[in-house]
Amino acid sequence: MKTKEKKALCIMSGGMDSTLSAYMMRDEGYEIIALHFNYSQLTQNKELECFDAICKDLGVKERYNLDLDFFSKIGASALIDKGIEVQTSGIEDGIPSTYVPFRNGIFLSIATAIAEKEGASTISIGVVEEDGSGYPDCTDTFIKSMQNSINLGTKDETALEIKMPLVHLSKSQIVQASLELKVPLELTWSCYKNETKACGVCDSCRLRLRGFKLAGISDPIAYE
Amino acid sequence: MKTKEKKALCIMSGGMDSTLSAYMMRDEGYEIIALHFNYSQLTQNKELECFDAICKDLGVKERYNLDLDFFSKIGASALIDKGIEVQTSGIEDGIPSTYVPFRNGIFLSIATAIAEKEGASTISIGVVEEDGSGYPDCTDTFIKSMQNSINLGTKDETALEIKMPLVHLSKSQIVQASLELKVPLELTWSCYKNETKACGVCDSCRLRLRGFKLAGISDPIAYE
Repeated sequence: MKTKEKKALCIMSGGMDSTLSAYMMRDEGYEIIALHFNYSQLTQNKELECFDAICKDLGVKERYNLDLDFFSKIGASALIDKGIEVQTSGIEDGIPSTYVPFRNGIFLSIATAIAEKEGASTISIGVVEEDGSGYPDCTDTFIKSMQNSINLGTKDETALEIKMPLVHLSKSQIVQASLELKVPLELTWSCYKNETKACGVCDSCRLRLRGFKLAGISDPIAYE
Repeated sequence: MKTKEKKALCIMSGGMDSTLSAYMMRDEGYEIIALHFNYSQLTQNKELECFDAICKDLGVKERYNLDLDFFSKIGASALIDKGIEVQTSGIEDGIPSTYVPFRNGIFLSIATAIAEKEGASTISIGVVEEDGSGYPDCTDTFIKSMQNSINLGTKDETALEIKMPLVHLSKSQIVQASLELKVPLELTWSCYKNETKACGVCDSCRLRLRGFKLAGISDPIAYE
C-alpha cells in the first residue's frame, strides 16, 4: 500500500528566501502546494512571473495564486502606496517604510485555510530574523505564536506545523544552501522597486547582494 | 486640551452579534471604525446592505468595505461553495458544513493591519462561544491567543486589545442587550441562505429565533 504523501503548503513570493524554503520542503519529501499573493506591491508582475517559473522548476502538485487587492485600501507601506518612498540610502535600525502591517499574519491566516482544506500538515514561510529587514512579523517568536493560535482556531483534527527553516540563517548561508539544493536563483527576484533590472540599493537588494558577496558567489540576476 | 479619542475597529458582518458588539464599543466611548468583508458568501449583497444601514445608524467615523474574492478560490464551506449544502434540519453537534476554514483568523489579521494603520487600540469581534454554531475560530481561547500573536507580530508601539463582549452570552441575552442599547435589530441579517426573507431553518436562523423566543421578544425581520 502506498503511504499517503505528506503535503506542505509553501508560501512563495518569488524571492530567494521563500524559494529556498520550498526547495527544502521538497528535499524533506513533501508534496508541494505553492501559494502566491498579489497584494498590490510595486513589483507584483515580476514576482508573479518568477513564482510561475519557480513552480515549473520545482514541480508543484498544485498552486494557488491569490489576488489580495484589499491591501491597496490599507496601504501604509512604501511597497503599496506610491506616495511613500522606498528607502535606498542603506539599511538602518528600526522598522523601514517598506513594512506592510501584519503582512505575514494575513498570509499565514490565508495559508491556514488552504492547508486545512487540502489536508496539508505543514506550512512553510521564508522569514529571516537577524539578517532581515527588521519587520516584526518575521520573528521566530511571532511565527511560533501564530502556529499555536492557528491550531486553536481550526478543527481538532487539523494540526499544522509552520516551518521557517531560514529564520536564523544569514543571507550568505541562504545563498550557500540554495546552491547546494540547486535552487534556480536566476529565477528569483528580491528588488522592491524595479521589475526589469534590480535597483541594487533598496534594503532588499542590499541584503541580497551582501549575502552573495559574503558567500563569494556572483548574483545571476541583472542590476541597473 | 481635548483628550485624544480612543478608537475601536469593529468587524461588522451585518448580523446581530457583531452589530451589538459595535454598539457596545460606542457605548464605552470609542470612536468607531467599521470593517466589513465580502467573501463570496451566499448572502453577500444583503449583508453589505445591512452593514451600510447599520453604519449610518451607528454614526461611524470611517468604514472599510473589503472584497476578499480569494475565499471563492478556497471554498470548502457551504457558505461559499454552492455545491455544499447549508444544513436546515436542525443544529447538531460537531462542526457544520457552513464552517469557513479559519475565517476569523483571516478577519482578525486584516483587522490588525487596519488597526495598526489607524492607531486604533481595540478590535471588536462578535464571536459567541457556547450558544454559537460550534466553529473553532469562535472561542475565547482562540481569540485571546490571536491577540497575543498579533501583538508579537506588529510594531512595539502597537498594543491591540481584542474585545469579544458576547463570547459567553446566550442568544437571548444578546437580544436583551440589543434592546437596552437600542440596536436596530430590524437592520440586521443572520440567515445563511436567503437575502429577502430569512429561511428560518438554517442554523443561524434557528439560533436567532431561539434567542428571540427565550427573550420573549418578536424578531422584527421577515421570515419565509
